[in-house]
Amino acid sequence: MQINPEELSSKDRYRWITSAVIPRPIAFVSSLSPEGNLNLAPFSFFNGICTSPPVLAISMGKRKSGDRKDSLRNIEETGEFVVNIVTEKIGKETERSSEDLPPESDEFSYTGLTPVPSTRVKPPRVAESPLSMECRLLQSMPIEKSSSTLILGEVVSIHAEEDILTDGLPDPRKLRPLSRLGGGTYATLGDLLEFPK
Amino acid sequence: MQINPEELSSKDRYRWITSAVIPRPIAFVSSLSPEGNLNLAPFSFFNGICTSPPVLAISMGKRKSGDRKDSLRNIEETGEFVVNIVTEKIGKETERSSEDLPPESDEFSYTGLTPVPSTRVKPPRVAESPLSMECRLLQSMPIEKSSSTLILGEVVSIHAEEDILTDGLPDPRKLRPLSRLGGGTYATLGDLLEFPK
Repeated sequence: MQINPEELSSKDRYRWITSAVIPRPIAFVSSLSPEGNLNLAPFSFFNGICTSPPVLAISMGKRKSGDRKDSLRNIEETGEFVVNIVTEKIGKETERSSEDLPPESDEFSYTGLTPVPSTRVKPPRVAESPLSMECRLLQSMPIEKSSSTLILGEVVSIHAEEDILTDGLPDPRKLRPLSRLGGGTYATLGDLLEFPK
Repeated sequence: MQINPEELSSKDRYRWITSAVIPRPIAFVSSLSPEGNLNLAPFSFFNGICTSPPVLAISMGKRKSGDRKDSLRNIEETGEFVVNIVTEKIGKETERSSEDLPPESDEFSYTGLTPVPSTRVKPPRVAESPLSMECRLLQSMPIEKSSSTLILGEVVSIHAEEDILTDGLPDPRKLRPLSRLGGGTYATLGDLLEFPK
């Protein structure tokens, strides 16, 4: 079948793209408002985009009210954030943190996750995530024709638990990351494959 | 352990970011040069970034020689490309297509995959992929401090095989997508999870 996306409702376009581009890695983003309010929220329009320097990109939309989401406002106003990797152990808390709380409420308290001071940025990382990347805002770019903003963050510090490493690098079998599919669905890693060159 | 990325070699920075941001969805990109040469190459610095309009983002680097990769040159010069979803059935061909062939050689012939005419853009889609998205270039953006370019493409047509759909949407259990991890490793989907709100 062939579909013209402009003939879909905006809800169905959302469903199609989030069901077609899978699995998506999850950035569990901690940030601080200029007033010092903590924020923690998951984003799956997320990926690395280059490694010299190391840069992560996250697309952040608007709330239904038209306001910027708390994470986007915090990052644009302070220039700092932390991307925590979501593992199987903190899937439930990640999903809970995506509920629409008021800006002054703190998703760390709400989910029971623990903030730990970062090394080079002010927002804390999530203690329960074994792999976190501290980022400084490199570029904040409006996406043409859309109300979303693409946030590019340079990774300035990496924190990794020793027990997720093999030969000094993150090992997928030890990290056990979760990814995002369409609807409300998450996925674990399945079989790991290598193909001959 | 804590790492300052600027103290890593560029090779180790690449290894760290590609091992930390996982699993990454794969865009298997077909494009045409202005002269009509076919190109097909996989990219995993890829994701959706918004859905109204539906936009996909792909980061494309330079070759070791400093030239733009064929896909990037074709997209910048023609404004069109197709993102084909990589499934378990075409993993081997996807890996083969990533070899560094000269611009005039055709990865469709090289891998044995079949080009099929698209609906709204000139580059063909891959017949063996059950889900393809035809794209028009929306923005081509240099990434600050980096030699990579972020390509934003608006999805103007979606082609989906009926047998990957459930209730009219792509079903992950039927689609069976592959994702990219660090090193040369690919992954299948594992368990699908839902968490209570």
